[in-house]
Amino acid sequence: MSKEVHLRKFKCVSCKREARVRILYPFCEACFLKHYERRVETVMRRYRLIEPQDKVLVAVSGGKDSLSCAHFLNRYREKVDFDVAVLHIDVGIVECTNERTERVVRSFCEQRGIEFYHLTFEDYLGVNPEILFRKSRRPQCSLCGMLKRYIMNRFARERGFNKVATGHCCDDIVRFFFKNWISRNFTWIMKLRPITESNHPKVITRIRPLFESLELENYTYAMINNINVAGCSRCSFFLRKDKWYDILRMIEKRDPYFKLNFVRGLHKIKWYNTDDQRVLNECIRCGEPTDKEICSVCVTKEVLNR
Amino acid sequence: MSKEVHLRKFKCVSCKREARVRILYPFCEACFLKHYERRVETVMRRYRLIEPQDKVLVAVSGGKDSLSCAHFLNRYREKVDFDVAVLHIDVGIVECTNERTERVVRSFCEQRGIEFYHLTFEDYLGVNPEILFRKSRRPQCSLCGMLKRYIMNRFARERGFNKVATGHCCDDIVRFFFKNWISRNFTWIMKLRPITESNHPKVITRIRPLFESLELENYTYAMINNINVAGCSRCSFFLRKDKWYDILRMIEKRDPYFKLNFVRGLHKIKWYNTDDQRVLNECIRCGEPTDKEICSVCVTKEVLNR
Repeated sequence: MSKEVHLRKFKCVSCKREARVRILYPFCEACFLKHYERRVETVMRRYRLIEPQDKVLVAVSGGKDSLSCAHFLNRYREKVDFDVAVLHIDVGIVECTNERTERVVRSFCEQRGIEFYHLTFEDYLGVNPEILFRKSRRPQCSLCGMLKRYIMNRFARERGFNKVATGHCCDDIVRFFFKNWISRNFTWIMKLRPITESNHPKVITRIRPLFESLELENYTYAMINNINVAGCSRCSFFLRKDKWYDILRMIEKRDPYFKLNFVRGLHKIKWYNTDDQRVLNECIRCGEPTDKEICSVCVTKEVLNR
Repeated sequence: MSKEVHLRKFKCVSCKREARVRILYPFCEACFLKHYERRVETVMRRYRLIEPQDKVLVAVSGGKDSLSCAHFLNRYREKVDFDVAVLHIDVGIVECTNERTERVVRSFCEQRGIEFYHLTFEDYLGVNPEILFRKSRRPQCSLCGMLKRYIMNRFARERGFNKVATGHCCDDIVRFFFKNWISRNFTWIMKLRPITESNHPKVITRIRPLFESLELENYTYAMINNINVAGCSRCSFFLRKDKWYDILRMIEKRDPYFKLNFVRGLHKIKWYNTDDQRVLNECIRCGEPTDKEICSVCVTKEVLNR
């Protein structure tokens, strides 16, 4: 998609100059950036995502969402005094992360003077991801997500960060909501908030600054800021094939504000009878927080020994 | 739509004879009826909609949903000992209720020996609905709904009924959910349950036996049972023009079980910060329960005196 895609013969709703971007409203580039950042800042303040002196580790895959998130947080430090560092996890699937994604994220950090961490599943977990993916019965995307969450939390804690930020955007949240509602994973829906507070000394608080930002807005934000993006072709491919992706596109055609209006209601709900009050233990193998005796990562690693 | 529309060259999933109905699964007519009633009975039992000795007033407009509801409840008396009566409210809009709808509902009740009540907005409320609809700023459908709810509750109480049943079906519930979520009417969503227990001595418990029945299933149930239905052309017209009607049709094409799976999660949620815990008073004019000093119906009637 080129810059030209967004050009329309509209006036910017803010400054009345020629609009260059039109997602929900027509904007010129400068006013779009202001509008975008103002909305993210509102989320930051309303849900108290960041406090002064926080140490925030941003998980960055190299895609438009996570890079926009890191770029915004780095800029936001002009307003609030906190630390930002970036973690790029090599998941061992060459279509997802590779030398190029690492280079993209590393140079993004170097340009901004952001501390950069690079970890591989192999080094950090001591497992060969290729064999793991082949041997485990879990779908690859689900296994990859589980391992990433484990590493993000553990690494952040080891390095003294008190918050982990991810680039989950409004579109992700709505898709997750429907998929999990229909599969009755209500405990997962509980986590669809701009902030998931720590519920155990070993669990790091998770924040999602782009909770009310659309995928297309993140793309545009990255583009206008000349951020070099390394798309993950594999995930995008699977997401595009997803039934909910299609359904949400259809809804959006009828109601462009649906996704935004929808996520804004999510913090209003809680659940009956779900096990979100469950007590977390420490895994008897690795010591990481889990609601079982042995955590999912250690159970998965056992597969390798079979 | 004729009976023939549902004929398909499929085998009934239950008895393997030729299927005559196919909504979610192919069924012959007899097995469809069993399947339909079994699902409604599960809702009845799981949410304890009816207890022995209950006195249930069914609000019947004359459409497929409310007539199916009344037919089912009347049959269900073979299993549980409770009373059923039917209330048909003439709302004073000739496209919605008229002599024909009254005749349809009255003869439905006569055939089954069900007690039949017929009320008009004009007689019961002492207002001319035509003038009211013209003078009130509220949209007609919203005003009509408010007046009907007021009458159903008050009349049921006056006549000693302890439950009011309505024919709200799965499709209605999903549409209401999205419309109210997007407009942030979270207190309304709270009521989207198979049962809304009384929260005030003057409030009658409301039950929705068709909570997990699809519109098309109700239609088919009425058709197979040879129930003469008087469709409300005005409401159908407005519903069909509704954005959410279209959106849900699109979703259904991709996921035929969506609506059913969706409503089955609804009882799992509750809300933060909503005023569903508010204390109900009695209206200083008419004595009916309200969360204000003067109830909405009395406020609306004031319009006539201006």
